[in-house]
Amino acid sequence: MLHTLHVSTRSRAELVDITAQVQDMVRSSEVSEGICLVYVPHTTAGVTINEGADPDVRRDILEQLERLVPKDGRYHHLEGNADAHIKASLLGSSVLVPISDGRLSLGTWQAIFLAEFDGPRSRKVLVQVMGG
Amino acid sequence: MLHTLHVSTRSRAELVDITAQVQDMVRSSEVSEGICLVYVPHTTAGVTINEGADPDVRRDILEQLERLVPKDGRYHHLEGNADAHIKASLLGSSVLVPISDGRLSLGTWQAIFLAEFDGPRSRKVLVQVMGG
Amino acid sequence: MLHTLHVSTRSRAELVDITAQVQDMVRSSEVSEGICLVYVPHTTAGVTINEGADPDVRRDILEQLERLVPKDGRYHHLEGNADAHIKASLLGSSVLVPISDGRLSLGTWQAIFLAEFDGPRSRKVLVQVMGG
Repeated sequence: MLHTLHVSTRSRAELVDITAQVQDMVRSSEVSEGICLVYVPHTTAGVTINEGADPDVRRDILEQLERLVPKDGRYHHLEGNADAHIKASLLGSSVLVPISDGRLSLGTWQAIFLAEFDGPRSRKVLVQVMGG
Repeated sequence: MLHTLHVSTRSRAELVDITAQVQDMVRSSEVSEGICLVYVPHTTAGVTINEGADPDVRRDILEQLERLVPKDGRYHHLEGNADAHIKASLLGSSVLVPISDGRLSLGTWQAIFLAEFDGPRSRKVLVQVMGG
Repeated sequence: MLHTLHVSTRSRAELVDITAQVQDMVRSSEVSEGICLVYVPHTTAGVTINEGADPDVRRDILEQLERLVPKDGRYHHLEGNADAHIKASLLGSSVLVPISDGRLSLGTWQAIFLAEFDGPRSRKVLVQVMGG
């Protein structure tokens, strides 16, 4: 079943840890072995998996993306968020995590982040659990 | 079942909207709840999800990728398309979209694009629909 | 069933071809039609699909990523591997490949690579085969 998670972001660019909410959805699905798709139905936000322990890792990811794709670069799209669209495509709109013994098989340091690039906004994240 | 979509690209770099064709394959699969894998079996093309309404978004994505990975950069691969290989890895070779009520659960502004980086060429896109 | 592949990397940055091992896991799963998820449970390594024939393609991918996200850039994370975290998010922590007739539906030139960005290390790759 397709579940929807609601996330309110607070900055223009931000990585929001949604691991616990996704884990809850996997648990309530009662799927023991399978895969979990985390999907962002937006075009100026994405999703990524990276280190959850040190918040500096999140900061580095966002700052380096900003160096590579600056907000005030030369773009044609007139809404002032062309960089956000490009960053969303670089990270991607989904991540997949294997499920084993009814839990996400994340590595020790891994967390799942909604990647906001044009906030603050109300965002949705779709979670589809497949398996048996 | 694995379906094949044939796409003829017309430029060296181009984002081709394939949403309608993928949606048709989902419909004909009669899967009501599940996931749809869109897979590009090439190494100088990729696939991405982004805004379909304003063609300037596509243009901005391609132009910024060209600034980050210029065609005439310093590369070892001798076929003149090293940049295309690198761009393909940055976007990725697949996207996944949840299926609900027999339809792709795309966001309002989302479209699925074949990302051509070494065209014009005849490309294949594989579509695998999973679920029940 | 979730399978684990062990890979020893030998350099700080390296693309290790794991196609044959993943193909073996697909074969032993006896799944004829479905999808194969290749998942890296690390935050300074990723996974990508690209050309396997010419090793220069791998070299170009790694060198261009190093130009875009240099090891000695301006970062906050203090472990000396901030660049590796960022590169991992750019490539992503998983790839998916369709399975048809019991085999990975890779394109002629495609290979699956573990992308090491903070080696040498012992890495794990999780492989989940879904289908019937």
